[in-house]
Amino acid sequence: MTKGQDTKERILGQALDLVSTLGIEGLSIGELAKATEMSKSGLFAHFSSKEDLQLEVLRTGTTHFIETVVSPALREPRGEPRVRALFERWLAWETLRAGGCPFIAAAFELDDRPGRLRDVLETTQRQWIDTLATAILIGMDEGHFHSDIDADQLVYEIYGVFMAFHLYHRLLRDPDARRRATDALDYLLRSAK
Amino acid sequence: MTKGQDTKERILGQALDLVSTLGIEGLSIGELAKATEMSKSGLFAHFSSKEDLQLEVLRTGTTHFIETVVSPALREPRGEPRVRALFERWLAWETLRAGGCPFIAAAFELDDRPGRLRDVLETTQRQWIDTLATAILIGMDEGHFHSDIDADQLVYEIYGVFMAFHLYHRLLRDPDARRRATDALDYLLRSAK
Repeated sequence: MTKGQDTKERILGQALDLVSTLGIEGLSIGELAKATEMSKSGLFAHFSSKEDLQLEVLRTGTTHFIETVVSPALREPRGEPRVRALFERWLAWETLRAGGCPFIAAAFELDDRPGRLRDVLETTQRQWIDTLATAILIGMDEGHFHSDIDADQLVYEIYGVFMAFHLYHRLLRDPDARRRATDALDYLLRSAK
Repeated sequence: MTKGQDTKERILGQALDLVSTLGIEGLSIGELAKATEMSKSGLFAHFSSKEDLQLEVLRTGTTHFIETVVSPALREPRGEPRVRALFERWLAWETLRAGGCPFIAAAFELDDRPGRLRDVLETTQRQWIDTLATAILIGMDEGHFHSDIDADQLVYEIYGVFMAFHLYHRLLRDPDARRRATDALDYLLRSAK
C-alpha cells in the first residue's frame, strides 16, 4: 500500500466513525475536515464530491464488516456455532463505534432516497442477509436445526433482534439490552431445533 | 379551535410527513416552506426556531399515534386481541406516510445527540413500550398468555419484528415483508401461551 492509499484508508476509517453518529447525510467534506484536522482542499484531493466520499465510506464499511464480523465467524464450525458467532460479532460491531452500526444509521436515511448510495447499501444488506441464511441452511444440513424451518423468516427475526438491540441500547440506554438480545437469539435458535 | 390553531395543526401534519422521509434533522423551516407553499417568515410566526418546530412535530406525532394506533386498539377486548390490535395498527402506521414511522426515523438520528428533542423521543418510546407491556400483562391475567413469561422481553422481541418490517419493506422492498411481520408476531404470541 502506498503512502497515499494509507492516508486515504485512515481518512475513510474516521469518516466511518462519523457516519455512525452523524448519519451518511451528515457526513460532509467539511465535517470530515474538522474530524481529521485536514483542509477541505486536502480532502478534495482524495474525494471528488460528497457522494464520492459517501460511496467510498460504504465500501470501507463493508470491508471492515467482512474483516471483523463475517470472516472470523466463517472460521467457526459449520451450523449453529457459526450462526451464533455471526450474531455475536454483529452485536460487537454495533458497539464498536460511538453511534453504533453505520449501515443501520444509513439504512433509515437512504431507504426512500433513490440513487447510487441507496443501491450500494441495499446490495450490502442483501449480501449480509444471504450470509446469515446460508449459515442457517448449513445448520439444517448438519442436523442442528429442524429441516422444515423457513431460513429466510428466521433471518428476518434475527435481524429484528439486532435492530431492537440498537434501539434499546442507544436510545433507551437499557442496561439489559445485550442480555435481551442474547436471550432473544437463544429463544429463536432453540425453537428452530 | 381557532383559525390560527387550525393552520398550525395543518402545517404540523405536513411537517410530520416530511420527518418521515427527510428525518427530524432534515426538517427545516426552509423545507417546510417549500412543502406548505408558505413563506419562511409566515412559518416563523408559528415556530420560533428549528428546534421549536421539531419539538412540536414530535408532540403532534405522539398525538396522531395515540389517535390512530393506541386509542382504537385499547377498545379491543382485553388480552391477546388487544396485543394483536396494537401491533396491527402499528404496522398500518408504518405504511401511513411515504417514509414510514417518523419516530423510528428520528430514533436513529437522535440516539446519540443529547438534548430536549432526544429526551422527548425517548419518553414517547418508553410510553409506547409500557403500553405494549401492560397489554401483555393483562393478557397474562386473562389467561391468554402463560403466567411465567417475561413481558418486557416479549415487548423487546415484538419491537424487533416491527423494526425488521421497516427495513425489509422500505430498504429491501420485500413484497413478503408484511407477511413476515405477521408470521413473526404469531409465532411469538403462540410461544407465549
